[in-house]
Amino acid sequence: MEDWIEKRLDAAVAGLPPCAGGDDAPCAPLPDGAEVADILSMMLSVLFPGCRHLSGGCRQTLRDMARRLAEQCSRAFAAQPANSSFDTRASSLGAVADGESAAAALLDAIPGIRAMLAEDIVAAYEGDPAAKSETEVVMSYPGLVAIATHRVAHVLERAGVPLIPRMMSERAHSVTGIDIHPGAMIGPGFFIDHGTGVVIGETCTIGRRVKLYQGVTLGALSFRKDSDGKLVKGIKRHPDVEDNVVIYAGATILGGKTVIGHDSVIGANVWLTHSVPSFSKVYNREPDPIVSQTMTMEGEAGYGI
Amino acid sequence: MEDWIEKRLDAAVAGLPPCAGGDDAPCAPLPDGAEVADILSMMLSVLFPGCRHLSGGCRQTLRDMARRLAEQCSRAFAAQPANSSFDTRASSLGAVADGESAAAALLDAIPGIRAMLAEDIVAAYEGDPAAKSETEVVMSYPGLVAIATHRVAHVLERAGVPLIPRMMSERAHSVTGIDIHPGAMIGPGFFIDHGTGVVIGETCTIGRRVKLYQGVTLGALSFRKDSDGKLVKGIKRHPDVEDNVVIYAGATILGGKTVIGHDSVIGANVWLTHSVPSFSKVYNREPDPIVSQTMTMEGEAGYGI
Amino acid sequence: MEDWIEKRLDAAVAGLPPCAGGDDAPCAPLPDGAEVADILSMMLSVLFPGCRHLSGGCRQTLRDMARRLAEQCSRAFAAQPANSSFDTRASSLGAVADGESAAAALLDAIPGIRAMLAEDIVAAYEGDPAAKSETEVVMSYPGLVAIATHRVAHVLERAGVPLIPRMMSERAHSVTGIDIHPGAMIGPGFFIDHGTGVVIGETCTIGRRVKLYQGVTLGALSFRKDSDGKLVKGIKRHPDVEDNVVIYAGATILGGKTVIGHDSVIGANVWLTHSVPSFSKVYNREPDPIVSQTMTMEGEAGYGI
Repeated sequence: MEDWIEKRLDAAVAGLPPCAGGDDAPCAPLPDGAEVADILSMMLSVLFPGCRHLSGGCRQTLRDMARRLAEQCSRAFAAQPANSSFDTRASSLGAVADGESAAAALLDAIPGIRAMLAEDIVAAYEGDPAAKSETEVVMSYPGLVAIATHRVAHVLERAGVPLIPRMMSERAHSVTGIDIHPGAMIGPGFFIDHGTGVVIGETCTIGRRVKLYQGVTLGALSFRKDSDGKLVKGIKRHPDVEDNVVIYAGATILGGKTVIGHDSVIGANVWLTHSVPSFSKVYNREPDPIVSQTMTMEGEAGYGI
Repeated sequence: MEDWIEKRLDAAVAGLPPCAGGDDAPCAPLPDGAEVADILSMMLSVLFPGCRHLSGGCRQTLRDMARRLAEQCSRAFAAQPANSSFDTRASSLGAVADGESAAAALLDAIPGIRAMLAEDIVAAYEGDPAAKSETEVVMSYPGLVAIATHRVAHVLERAGVPLIPRMMSERAHSVTGIDIHPGAMIGPGFFIDHGTGVVIGETCTIGRRVKLYQGVTLGALSFRKDSDGKLVKGIKRHPDVEDNVVIYAGATILGGKTVIGHDSVIGANVWLTHSVPSFSKVYNREPDPIVSQTMTMEGEAGYGI
Repeated sequence: MEDWIEKRLDAAVAGLPPCAGGDDAPCAPLPDGAEVADILSMMLSVLFPGCRHLSGGCRQTLRDMARRLAEQCSRAFAAQPANSSFDTRASSLGAVADGESAAAALLDAIPGIRAMLAEDIVAAYEGDPAAKSETEVVMSYPGLVAIATHRVAHVLERAGVPLIPRMMSERAHSVTGIDIHPGAMIGPGFFIDHGTGVVIGETCTIGRRVKLYQGVTLGALSFRKDSDGKLVKGIKRHPDVEDNVVIYAGATILGGKTVIGHDSVIGANVWLTHSVPSFSKVYNREPDPIVSQTMTMEGEAGYGI
């Protein structure tokens, strides 16, 4: 018993919101972040067999995964109502209301997820001159972790599961720097290269064979407020990107009415808030930086301005 | 004994700086990164009870945390003098000189930290149309991990503890992509959405209810050098951001004399190195990208230039 | 046996590509990501003795590391041919063909790696006004993790080892947000501050004492395609950066023929696709944002446009 600790604990604990179960008991069973991370890791292991550590075979791993996912989804349903009140798509797409049904929906979706990932792997290999083999893509490309996680989380999002899909997408965001909201709808053959800083909003739709680079934002242009000044939630806020579009690093495309027509190319750092037709090429005029060998920059070690 | 290894070890070890304790003994007790990560994780568990895994109750977790933090802070004090020589604020704010006092300072600060976090959670829920509930914010928003970590690290920074605060802030940076120097002073109701690439410098001050998006830099404009050409350390180099300011993605605000007046809005990608008054709206003219359906872009697969 | 799981497993497993070893057996021994992460962690522990957790001494750690690395490299060689067909540099620089030779090459390289890291540490301390001590740099700077990982991965890349170098660089990318391809050649005294979003391409060369900030891209300008429309791999695509260059946050420098002459400064957000001579200072004109206190921004909560 260290006195310097004991005499401070009452005040410290009094400053915390209540633990379900009391101050000295374990807290209430909300979903557990470590469990969700494990479940996601098991899913990635079976989706890329042989390429990630797998303690049993695929069948046994899926069995364990499904049991544990059902438990976590049950906690999420108990913690709060399903997303369906916010997401009209979910209700029309077979929202479920219990953990077992949610885990069953994911098991049923595996062949479809895997078929899309097969196209994603090819897209990465063919789309990056630095990729030496498809195996290298599977073993080391963060974009593949992000899209595989998204395809799993999206199934649970459409099933109306609260909390778990965003916990999964945030896990991928933490590992890869790529932030894809689980509500986004993304076609097969999707490739994000490097990826750090990519943000893809909740109501985006993305077609087939789309390629993004690091730092691309597909975001909201503005947020509508209700008569009380609160943000209106659940409306279409993010762009639609059609098939075969390439978007280079740092481009920012905003707005729920913005459509990037198929087979378009959006250049690096482009700022776009309106639609462009199919086969467009959109790029900034190359800026004309000042190059000097005599000029003194402020502070000599400054930010170059 | 593999010969191909053994015959190389002498030269390899000779190329390393000395281990305290000798080549074959464990090295000197500097702070341990895994311990600091665990301590931070325990703090986040009690600050968000029920929302993160907690093996005991809040009281027992705080008891263990305080003991282990005292040990790590003691190592940090032994490794080098306190920051106070560089940080005039620390010395005027109750810098301590031993591990137990530092851990005690953190215990004492818990109610104040938690009160600010309660406002941070509300700010995130109200500030993001995609947020379904406050529980979702706590369970999955990286901005909350970053600010909670900062509020803990900042207490230790002001107590003059070397090393540990930066180890904590870098832990959050690694997990979230948000890099907040523990010296920054940040008011309650702070929300960073998405967050990847955010950098907040050591001498920033940020008021109440400020909102930032991904990629915002609050940085130094230039670095002063002394007569030996070495950088001068410990001077005010970063901006002040007043209450109710919103700063959109990718904006860069630089300089120790730059003040963003309260209730201002800074648009995406704005580059700002001077002060703006309260209620300002600052944004770039929307660039006018070239849109073409016939033009050939260099290489067709190029960066769009 | 939960029926709701069992009745779904056949279809789920049938949707997966085959596990080597059969559905219920562990999969084929490709390199293991967790092992590669451990090996990298052991290397960082010995390269910074005392500053990272080390369960044995340096000598014992190196012995274990070498054994485990040899096993992982053997798996990588078995999984696919060495990189040398893509990388003419590797074949001229002592490519090896077995795991033990690769691990031996890394042991032999340790003194050289450590000598460069010593200069990297000094560069970080001298280059950042916020750095309180060299110990703080070693204990908490992500740029040092990224460059230390790169120096290790680069040795294995030049030895022609498949997969493992990219797995290591992606590990550092995940932890730091800094994506350095293991093929890049980087001189001593290299410092990346903050670092989130930095991308350094495969065929870059970087001289001595170069400093980068967050969000800098050293990338490819365009990708050449062959007569079948496939990307040509293995050609010089990325810039050369000479000694003593500083590149501020968000600058983008592209192209295999682009050379940044020594002692140049590239300002923040500069976009550069051609060479600049030594001692150049390159910066954007400061944009002139619109500042208004009366204007209504679209939606009031919009992206500032």
